[in-house]
Amino acid sequence: MTLELMMIREEGIVLYMPEYASVRVIECSPPSWMVLLALEEKSLPYKCQELSFARGEHRSPEMLARNPRGTIPVLSDREFQLFETYAIFSYLEYAYPSKPLAPQETNEHVYAILRLHESSHLKSHGMALFAYLMKTPEEALDKDILRERKDQFVNELRFWEDYLEGRDWLAGTSISYADLSVFTYIATAVHLGLSLQTTFPRLAAFVERMKQRPAVQKTWPALWNTNHYSFLSDEGA
Amino acid sequence: MTLELMMIREEGIVLYMPEYASVRVIECSPPSWMVLLALEEKSLPYKCQELSFARGEHRSPEMLARNPRGTIPVLSDREFQLFETYAIFSYLEYAYPSKPLAPQETNEHVYAILRLHESSHLKSHGMALFAYLMKTPEEALDKDILRERKDQFVNELRFWEDYLEGRDWLAGTSISYADLSVFTYIATAVHLGLSLQTTFPRLAAFVERMKQRPAVQKTWPALWNTNHYSFLSDEGA
Repeated sequence: MTLELMMIREEGIVLYMPEYASVRVIECSPPSWMVLLALEEKSLPYKCQELSFARGEHRSPEMLARNPRGTIPVLSDREFQLFETYAIFSYLEYAYPSKPLAPQETNEHVYAILRLHESSHLKSHGMALFAYLMKTPEEALDKDILRERKDQFVNELRFWEDYLEGRDWLAGTSISYADLSVFTYIATAVHLGLSLQTTFPRLAAFVERMKQRPAVQKTWPALWNTNHYSFLSDEGA
Repeated sequence: MTLELMMIREEGIVLYMPEYASVRVIECSPPSWMVLLALEEKSLPYKCQELSFARGEHRSPEMLARNPRGTIPVLSDREFQLFETYAIFSYLEYAYPSKPLAPQETNEHVYAILRLHESSHLKSHGMALFAYLMKTPEEALDKDILRERKDQFVNELRFWEDYLEGRDWLAGTSISYADLSVFTYIATAVHLGLSLQTTFPRLAAFVERMKQRPAVQKTWPALWNTNHYSFLSDEGA
């Protein structure tokens, strides 16, 4: 174990995340993607280690030693093994404070952190919806269940549409962790066919603004460029 | 609104939390209790405003202006209206860094934050169990549902029993936010009849250690001194 830890120390930052091709329909992992985006926005050097859900690689003895819960993403850096997305963000800001993703000015800082933690609601409604689509064969999808989960996700979006009133980013004048978190869930829903333009014009503009960023362009899920779904379109659900 | 905000500024810290007597069976609110504990441990002056769930006081126009989601606790301090427990903790540490509840030493700091965020699993299993007991009349309780939810909560406790190996606190050598969070969920389960001693001796000792702290003694839910439940005892479930 001592030798292994020493080797980890030499590796620098490694992000253990799902191999997107092993994630059915979603073809992405919002929590892993937002950590990737944070590393890119902070211009930190890192390596990615993609693990296959299908082959259970995220629950190997090595990964369970890093994270006894067997969840990914896991961020390994020197002697630290981090999991839980908010804890990873907190670590990155603590260990690499230059190019901050938590605003410096007090008012912006406080509300950026609040919005980040509020995005847990978007996560819970989003993952309930996405997991249903991931785990259910298309012919077995129940339209009522799908519509109910879509409605809960869409209702949650109303908060975020409101929060973007009069501002480009969720807190303050520059991008923060809250934006990364919210973006990955909404972009996933758009990939699954959700249309934002009519009901959520600020969120639609926010997604377009995010897509202009080099960090998003570099990490855009490759399968999304060829696969397009309509599960959440007005016709689909 | 401007006048109201000025009045809030003069009030200092106000914690809006449930009136415990309005919370059936649980007679407590773990998220509110952990914020109370943080205020006490940090020796901050504050006022409590207890709101009745039964009368819907947590969803009054005034409270929705502070928190559009209508959840409590809400911490009001000067111009800031905070909700989401982790965001409240982050705010307290940022605004009142003396008497820190996030350890200063790097290794302890990183793992204290990780354990705090990991306690979200204890929260989700705990609240699924507690909400079932709160909302279900005793004669309508389904033993299988109760046992399943108890088992999920108890399985989660195994992580925390492991994390306490060789240490008094969850990270480092002094109390941190992670301890406050974990304690409130486990103490609530003990109030509902869960026995720790045989299977979780470290957690049992941890709970006793916490009960020695003036912060816990001052904020102990009053109804717990007279009411004792056995829903989660080996006989009860």
